Amino acid sequence: MNTIDLLRSHRSIRKFTEQPVDDDLAESIITAGLSAATSSNLQGTTVIRVCNPNTRAAIAELAGGQTYVETAGAFFVWCADLHRSAVACEMAGGEFHGGMTEHFIIATTDCAIAAQNAVVAAESVGLGICYIGGIRNDPAQMTELLDLPEQVVPLFGLCIGWPDQDPALKPRLPISVTLKEETYDTTSEREGIAAYDAHMREYYLERTKGKVDRTWSADMSALLGKESRPHMRSYLDSQGMNQR
Amino acid sequence: MNTIDLLRSHRSIRKFTEQPVDDDLAESIITAGLSAATSSNLQGTTVIRVCNPNTRAAIAELAGGQTYVETAGAFFVWCADLHRSAVACEMAGGEFHGGMTEHFIIATTDCAIAAQNAVVAAESVGLGICYIGGIRNDPAQMTELLDLPEQVVPLFGLCIGWPDQDPALKPRLPISVTLKEETYDTTSEREGIAAYDAHMREYYLERTKGKVDRTWSADMSALLGKESRPHMRSYLDSQGMNQR
Repeated sequence: MNTIDLLRSHRSIRKFTEQPVDDDLAESIITAGLSAATSSNLQGTTVIRVCNPNTRAAIAELAGGQTYVETAGAFFVWCADLHRSAVACEMAGGEFHGGMTEHFIIATTDCAIAAQNAVVAAESVGLGICYIGGIRNDPAQMTELLDLPEQVVPLFGLCIGWPDQDPALKPRLPISVTLKEETYDTTSEREGIAAYDAHMREYYLERTKGKVDRTWSADMSALLGKESRPHMRSYLDSQGMNQR
Repeated sequence: MNTIDLLRSHRSIRKFTEQPVDDDLAESIITAGLSAATSSNLQGTTVIRVCNPNTRAAIAELAGGQTYVETAGAFFVWCADLHRSAVACEMAGGEFHGGMTEHFIIATTDCAIAAQNAVVAAESVGLGICYIGGIRNDPAQMTELLDLPEQVVPLFGLCIGWPDQDPALKPRLPISVTLKEETYDTTSEREGIAAYDAHMREYYLERTKGKVDRTWSADMSALLGKESRPHMRSYLDSQGMNQR
């Protein structure tokens, strides 16, 4: 399969075989991930591999009962990291003022870019993956479990393992809605969303034999019509991130 | 080349030939990008392709004189986008409370993950890329240039084109510093940073025939010892993002 076809065939995998992920392969995947572009060579990413079954069980639970955190061949926590740079500043005899919102954007973006590179590396050898945003349900407990210093924020988990399921591709918004020319033209956005709503409704009905009758708009309304992880602001502040 | 080798051979490209990037190929690259995982199917990414030479010149200038924004075969602005979801909430007859820090993290992460997928797609066919974080020098002007609605934030630009240079790989921090086991162990971090400092010093000296004598720690001290884009906090607030 060529790489563009590989990228277009991504599905999240939530059921894995018991086959472990070889240590050398895991390190090769993470190294490939960390070869991605990084803003001003900051390299604002730290990856923590978690093997301890008790820690895995605790993370699975705080993430909302995502049992595949326990069963995946390998599990990694991706952290936006300015701690290491703070140490470097001290070693260079300089000051550190890394608590600004812009610094948080840089580290978060660095981390997500590196993680996705690792995901592509994993999928290219036939492994399946699932991002675990649910670790942000309780970042304070994650910080304690992983002994994270200040200026380190656990952004998401990543399950990697050998797939034991073959789920269908999830349809995406039409490219006419997500790719624009020259400016952000809103003219046909409602039309595009309505078309996608119809598409997703069909997808859900078919996958659940008629039990789930939902649209994307309804999903967005459920997701964004309420508060989401209201602790994030003060948690970031307590870690010295996104402060001003 | 296998995919892991491709990922490990990434260099940013800042000099491009005059050969354009075919429209179909560009759309295929962006479609591959947007096939990446997305949090709760939010798809919080909008890509704006900019061809207009005046807009390109304005962006090149506000990004700090990065002329390759003008000369790259294709140039895209990647936006963290909750506007479309806000419209969907309205279409579903629901409310929208997407101004929280957590929502900003979701959209930013979605956008960076999709962009990196597009980068891998581009590099897999021999194109070169360069991220342009410099568009955050003046996000208000970017907002005006691209006519961005509220809840849309220009995160970075992306030059894609046929390479007209072949730069050396930039060394990365040793994996012993960036990949940890079970917890965030700080024991050997100074040793690892010192080793990388020596490595980077050699890299700079060699690349500049002895003119640039710098370490990573010194770079970090220059980068993080001062304020960085202090307008980001209030800009995001004015766009209805990262508010609470």
